[in-house]
Amino acid sequence: MNTRPRRICLVGVGLIAGSLGLALKRAEAVETITGLGRGLDRLARAQALGAIDRYTTDPGEAIEDADLVVLGVPLGATAGVMRDLRPHLHDDLVITDVGSAKRCVVDDVETALGAAPPGFVPGHPIAGTEHSGVEAAFPSLFDGRRVILTPLASGRVEATEAVEWLWRQAGAEVTTMSVAHHDRMLAITSHLPHLLAFGLVDMLARDPDHEEILGYAAGGFRDFTRIASSDPVMWRDICLGNREAVLEALSLYRRDLEQLAEKVEASDGTGLEAVFRSAKQTRDAHKHGFER
Amino acid sequence: MNTRPRRICLVGVGLIAGSLGLALKRAEAVETITGLGRGLDRLARAQALGAIDRYTTDPGEAIEDADLVVLGVPLGATAGVMRDLRPHLHDDLVITDVGSAKRCVVDDVETALGAAPPGFVPGHPIAGTEHSGVEAAFPSLFDGRRVILTPLASGRVEATEAVEWLWRQAGAEVTTMSVAHHDRMLAITSHLPHLLAFGLVDMLARDPDHEEILGYAAGGFRDFTRIASSDPVMWRDICLGNREAVLEALSLYRRDLEQLAEKVEASDGTGLEAVFRSAKQTRDAHKHGFER
Repeated sequence: MNTRPRRICLVGVGLIAGSLGLALKRAEAVETITGLGRGLDRLARAQALGAIDRYTTDPGEAIEDADLVVLGVPLGATAGVMRDLRPHLHDDLVITDVGSAKRCVVDDVETALGAAPPGFVPGHPIAGTEHSGVEAAFPSLFDGRRVILTPLASGRVEATEAVEWLWRQAGAEVTTMSVAHHDRMLAITSHLPHLLAFGLVDMLARDPDHEEILGYAAGGFRDFTRIASSDPVMWRDICLGNREAVLEALSLYRRDLEQLAEKVEASDGTGLEAVFRSAKQTRDAHKHGFER
Repeated sequence: MNTRPRRICLVGVGLIAGSLGLALKRAEAVETITGLGRGLDRLARAQALGAIDRYTTDPGEAIEDADLVVLGVPLGATAGVMRDLRPHLHDDLVITDVGSAKRCVVDDVETALGAAPPGFVPGHPIAGTEHSGVEAAFPSLFDGRRVILTPLASGRVEATEAVEWLWRQAGAEVTTMSVAHHDRMLAITSHLPHLLAFGLVDMLARDPDHEEILGYAAGGFRDFTRIASSDPVMWRDICLGNREAVLEALSLYRRDLEQLAEKVEASDGTGLEAVFRSAKQTRDAHKHGFER
């Protein structure tokens, strides 16, 4: 198992894997980047954009000389991809992914292979935009961003080292934590906000006056709903993939909204101001972290 | 009643009124801008920043030779300011405001003066940032932005013309509509999103792990919660000032969240994807409007 992998295979070359390819080439960190996918046109575009050196639609060809495989596919495609790769896997292969939820990826890998292989290290780069596809990829996407790895008890330390090394080459900071802790944190900071933003725009879309109403939307609405321009299939998979943690966060939030509604109903200015003030203080104290 | 007002009085010189002062001076549109307020330090800063030409804490002095008064105070201060101005009002004076809700402003003006004066034209520039205070003011804040006026049946046409003219000088586009229509639209595009963002950060603030969780927040969370850094007192006033429309929007949204929760609970991928897709299509179709 090579802790300094030289031959990388990207399975699915979209925004995240494409940006990883561009970042690794910017750093001249690896020898070869092979793209594996199902659409020749998309793979050719990824090569033309410089995210991969070569490509194939054949899983065996793609990973036969690879040190490390990065699954860059939507969560819902994990199990199918792993089944395709299964006949060609070798013991020294390091495998990681970029999925926004981790328990479901581990489950899918285990289901597809019988057990998670020793080279498998679940990962999640905390970076992205509301755009998707390799056309939206750019090499600095991970600069100074965090990548969370959730190594499994069954995994080898060298595999984690290899994946950590790779992400550092791409400009990211790497931390490790448990699958459950990752899934709970991301449900609150990412999955729930996406659900809330999609929900608000959908509610508006069903208003007969929505064309006019949107004409008067300003910067607050624009930023609040930016993530509602994200890929519907990807977010369907994330919400279902992290179903339990998302439901828990959503339930907590709905209780909070009920209390806020009671305060507005009761014209409880003191109570509302206290909530708003606590929120502003918390956000202002942390904004230099996520606004860098 | 002068439809091309030359002597402007800004009551309360914060982000909005301060930016209006800067924009009017950029356009060399008026003769004199007088700031009226209660804090000499803040007024002196507004003058030093070029938002006003002169200032006073005396209502009579401030409006004795003014053509037009702009109330730039928080909604909760409207009634008090109007009571202070009352002894000094003259029939030819045009009065407008910049409040984010309009029914409550009209009510407060009527309560303070007995009836809305013929020169009174409620107004709302759809522009702002999460910052407040004259230090955050800038002259291009209204460039290409919309200003909604909600003229009253009791108001004179010349007053509306004067206020329209003023905002056009500041770079804005002006439209008129009813008070009720304004309040309903803004509840959906602005007041509800603020409540939801404040609510999410407040929920997080009460999580014992919030320091760590915020460390993993990325761009989606940053943009979704930007408006939760807004002024708590101002937003308390807005939520209570537009209480009925806010409650209606909040109730509609809570029903929507309940349905989303049911879809996640039931692992209804088709249903979730349909909601997300409708939201993305609606937002993408309009984003050039509010992203300009």
